[in-house]
Amino acid sequence: MDFQAILEEITATLQAELRAHGPRGEVAQYIPALARVPAGHIGMALRTCDGQEAVAGDGALPFSIQSISKVFTLTLAMQHLSEEQLWSRIGREPSGTAFNSLVQLEFEHGTPRNPFINAGAIAVADRLVGLYGDAACAQLSAFLSDLSGEPIGYDEEVAASEAATGFRNQALANFMKSFGRVDHAVDTVLDLYFHQCALSMSCLQLARAAAYLSRDGAHPVRPGAHIMTERQTRRINSLMLTCGTYDAAGEFAYRIGLPCKSGVGGGILAVVPDHLTLVVWSPALDETGNSVLGQKALELFTRRTGLSIF
Amino acid sequence: MDFQAILEEITATLQAELRAHGPRGEVAQYIPALARVPAGHIGMALRTCDGQEAVAGDGALPFSIQSISKVFTLTLAMQHLSEEQLWSRIGREPSGTAFNSLVQLEFEHGTPRNPFINAGAIAVADRLVGLYGDAACAQLSAFLSDLSGEPIGYDEEVAASEAATGFRNQALANFMKSFGRVDHAVDTVLDLYFHQCALSMSCLQLARAAAYLSRDGAHPVRPGAHIMTERQTRRINSLMLTCGTYDAAGEFAYRIGLPCKSGVGGGILAVVPDHLTLVVWSPALDETGNSVLGQKALELFTRRTGLSIF
Amino acid sequence: MDFQAILEEITATLQAELRAHGPRGEVAQYIPALARVPAGHIGMALRTCDGQEAVAGDGALPFSIQSISKVFTLTLAMQHLSEEQLWSRIGREPSGTAFNSLVQLEFEHGTPRNPFINAGAIAVADRLVGLYGDAACAQLSAFLSDLSGEPIGYDEEVAASEAATGFRNQALANFMKSFGRVDHAVDTVLDLYFHQCALSMSCLQLARAAAYLSRDGAHPVRPGAHIMTERQTRRINSLMLTCGTYDAAGEFAYRIGLPCKSGVGGGILAVVPDHLTLVVWSPALDETGNSVLGQKALELFTRRTGLSIF
Amino acid sequence: MDFQAILEEITATLQAELRAHGPRGEVAQYIPALARVPAGHIGMALRTCDGQEAVAGDGALPFSIQSISKVFTLTLAMQHLSEEQLWSRIGREPSGTAFNSLVQLEFEHGTPRNPFINAGAIAVADRLVGLYGDAACAQLSAFLSDLSGEPIGYDEEVAASEAATGFRNQALANFMKSFGRVDHAVDTVLDLYFHQCALSMSCLQLARAAAYLSRDGAHPVRPGAHIMTERQTRRINSLMLTCGTYDAAGEFAYRIGLPCKSGVGGGILAVVPDHLTLVVWSPALDETGNSVLGQKALELFTRRTGLSIF
Repeated sequence: MDFQAILEEITATLQAELRAHGPRGEVAQYIPALARVPAGHIGMALRTCDGQEAVAGDGALPFSIQSISKVFTLTLAMQHLSEEQLWSRIGREPSGTAFNSLVQLEFEHGTPRNPFINAGAIAVADRLVGLYGDAACAQLSAFLSDLSGEPIGYDEEVAASEAATGFRNQALANFMKSFGRVDHAVDTVLDLYFHQCALSMSCLQLARAAAYLSRDGAHPVRPGAHIMTERQTRRINSLMLTCGTYDAAGEFAYRIGLPCKSGVGGGILAVVPDHLTLVVWSPALDETGNSVLGQKALELFTRRTGLSIF
Repeated sequence: MDFQAILEEITATLQAELRAHGPRGEVAQYIPALARVPAGHIGMALRTCDGQEAVAGDGALPFSIQSISKVFTLTLAMQHLSEEQLWSRIGREPSGTAFNSLVQLEFEHGTPRNPFINAGAIAVADRLVGLYGDAACAQLSAFLSDLSGEPIGYDEEVAASEAATGFRNQALANFMKSFGRVDHAVDTVLDLYFHQCALSMSCLQLARAAAYLSRDGAHPVRPGAHIMTERQTRRINSLMLTCGTYDAAGEFAYRIGLPCKSGVGGGILAVVPDHLTLVVWSPALDETGNSVLGQKALELFTRRTGLSIF
Repeated sequence: MDFQAILEEITATLQAELRAHGPRGEVAQYIPALARVPAGHIGMALRTCDGQEAVAGDGALPFSIQSISKVFTLTLAMQHLSEEQLWSRIGREPSGTAFNSLVQLEFEHGTPRNPFINAGAIAVADRLVGLYGDAACAQLSAFLSDLSGEPIGYDEEVAASEAATGFRNQALANFMKSFGRVDHAVDTVLDLYFHQCALSMSCLQLARAAAYLSRDGAHPVRPGAHIMTERQTRRINSLMLTCGTYDAAGEFAYRIGLPCKSGVGGGILAVVPDHLTLVVWSPALDETGNSVLGQKALELFTRRTGLSIF
Repeated sequence: MDFQAILEEITATLQAELRAHGPRGEVAQYIPALARVPAGHIGMALRTCDGQEAVAGDGALPFSIQSISKVFTLTLAMQHLSEEQLWSRIGREPSGTAFNSLVQLEFEHGTPRNPFINAGAIAVADRLVGLYGDAACAQLSAFLSDLSGEPIGYDEEVAASEAATGFRNQALANFMKSFGRVDHAVDTVLDLYFHQCALSMSCLQLARAAAYLSRDGAHPVRPGAHIMTERQTRRINSLMLTCGTYDAAGEFAYRIGLPCKSGVGGGILAVVPDHLTLVVWSPALDETGNSVLGQKALELFTRRTGLSIF
């Protein structure tokens, strides 16, 4: 398939719609650095299993990847920890409640439902602090730089704003710690968490970095190298499908039919196992916190290509 | 692939394990007719898209399909109702709570999270009573008879026992009715619900009846006939993946990687889109209410065949 | 004190307010027989420990006592059951949730928080069915007739309407039964519950019937006879204070400072231990389900007389 | 009544019981400074409306007053803030859930149920920081010194330990702040909260300091001075009765029949309106967090004196 043409066609369609009707949904408002991103961006990029790439619209512009980072911190933790060390602290089931709810956490004594809700990602960050100590932020950016083949860094303004306003995440981390489910100092753990949310990457960089998810764990670019096993890759893909898009996983599974992980920066990472990784970006969000045009772009892509797991 | 040989090999493996260690898990105890089913049964059957069939072990013995029936009542409702008529009453997201919990229902004012938890299936039954009135039970068995090509009926002893002990389901139905979310008399709606749980079918009959789910909605046996559209079929398959196995959907997606719907009778229906439907049956359940050996059979099958959606 | 003059003065004040501004709040709408009661009624009656009585406004008109009945069924149960038999099924603490919530019941496995929320009163009704079988309704009206010194009966239209629309109570009863916390048939238990809500009594009859609560358990009129012990009386009074007015017990304790039990018919029973029982009635309710003018009448009374337990 | 004799008799009875059977219950373990207090202490003190005092056992030994401090911070806030300023942030109803639960807070969007659960006391502390800024701790100890007529201070070791281990309180404060229900910096607010828990006072000092609660708000010792109005005093007493003893308010109201506020240091403050304030202390707690022997002492006192509000 001529993926470059397909991506261009889809972005052109959505840009026309934007010009005609303006953006629907709303750009995330909770920190200034996110709130001032223009709603009109639309970018796409993909990378196939065999290394073919396509990019369209604003697909080469960096944006704040936010919760998409949860895929990479989980990968890093799975690389270095035993199943028991990792999953004794985090569940693997859909939560059925909002991504930042404390209720489930209270009923289940401080064990988050899965690694893609905030509490779960904080629990993963605690594991990484255990592995890397003060070097955790540096290790994470180095990991992403290796995956995407170019230097990846943090938007420190975003990280600082997340820290200054992250009362809910403070509550989640302290609550888990009160159950004895966080080992390290809350401030250290949250520093990593706020930084991972502030990673700045383009659609193309993300599509490259996540390429191992469509390659049964094989490194995106380094021949012979493996990021994780085939089983571990399946674990992440299945978690993305059941838990990757906040409280809209059911709708995503139906309308898009691919494992996805979204972020409030407006990005969505989608995986077509054994085929490709696809990343879309458009900042305006619907009430579930998922990019409005990003979802539309994914729907148009799966309809146009017939690629879906169902 | 020689599916007959594969199913025989898997059942033989599991029968040997049963002989060596006895059954793990426990047969559902809440009604006598289920409690007295011997734990040692293991059956499998599949039907491919192009009509090839295989059956092994007790795959031709009828059992109580219980919650697997939720797939068929949902199909019937989707055939005859508009999206709005159906989905205004039922959500499509994982519930994150036990299959028979009332908590979610209270917080969301009587709207069940999805059609595969009990409350959701009762809401679907209410819709079917609206369509068929007193003939709802007859229509449902006729539908299944048409799908599987032979007469399918109810185990009236099971239906009567379900009715006599179904206090939790009475609570769910009355609770939804108190929110104005059930239109018809609770007793009539539950009569259908208790009957659908008491449908008696074999693995082979179920694999045939559900074959439209692997055929983009095409009728299992009647050429040219359609049960539902391709999009509707994708809807059901994605719901099975995210919500079909009670509170273990995440584990199923990972370990088995197929849309599945399980029942407390010990049956599990799995779909490999565009390939086949597979049904396994073994009565002893784990603490999530899913068949222990059924899950193992599905894992062995996907490992052996490489068939998985991830 | 000249209680007759005080009651007349208070009802006159409130009637003047009604004429000037019309009724605030809303008459209970969920059954026709309650909905058609004119909002403009205001009645008061009291009986002192030594038998002095006063009545004003519509204080001699019968109304539907609704949840005030929970005080009398609890009394009857405490008379005939051991502490263990009774309190093993029902808690004695404020619920912190709406009077008809199922959430608390799920988290606490079918044990209602206290006997004055609906679930708790249904649990008490189950105990009474155990004591009296089919004669429970007759025994309850006989008990109230004995207490108030004249025949007390049921408004069968109200009872039938409660039964026809009581889906939430059906849900509560079936839910408790699913936890094994209701012994008798749900329909039998609810028949008693729906009847007790349909008891028809005037303020004066209620003030007489409840007089034992201000007399350390001594029978309202029969010298030497006791309804319950002093300790049991204190139990009921303290339960009324902490749990008697739905989700407004804190406000009642502060503004009125007396043990109270209210009903959605607009009645409120108040106890001044060692002094008197006071009953007010006015049908229009605030959003917590308590009579608007009834509360005002009680406030005026305690301010005027200085009677309060704090 | 000869209160001195009564208190001596009760402490003697309980000391004999301690010698015979050892302490039941368990001393609070969550910080070392509390954990090492010997379980065998038993102290009592009271002060009547007209200034008579009695003290027995360890009634003059200082202990950590913990949650009893919530009465005094609430008083201070009520002195200086309008009803609206104070109660817009805090409810006045029993919570029905454990004193440190976050669930209620999530469902009610960051508004604590009452000022005596931890979240509510933190909300009060936030108000006091608004009034006094950095001087809040100093103002609180000055207030207590004025009330009790001698210098009252903080146990800084306790305060530091509370801060070092107070993850649940961190979670509560940050959670409320995430709902915009805490105005000041979480660390500042919690510093006051952790200090108020670390106030060190004897039974006698507490009985003096709280004497305004039995005197319709009149200052304990300074003639003519008022701490609060009669209505405000009734507010606090009624809140103590309905919410003052964690999840055991119903049992306290019944067994003791007085407004009480307990702390995990083992102290309990009880008020007999228009008569006296009584403080008991014994460190071993039951599973509801209330002093085992403290409750027993209060029961013996009310039985012996007949003083009860019911």
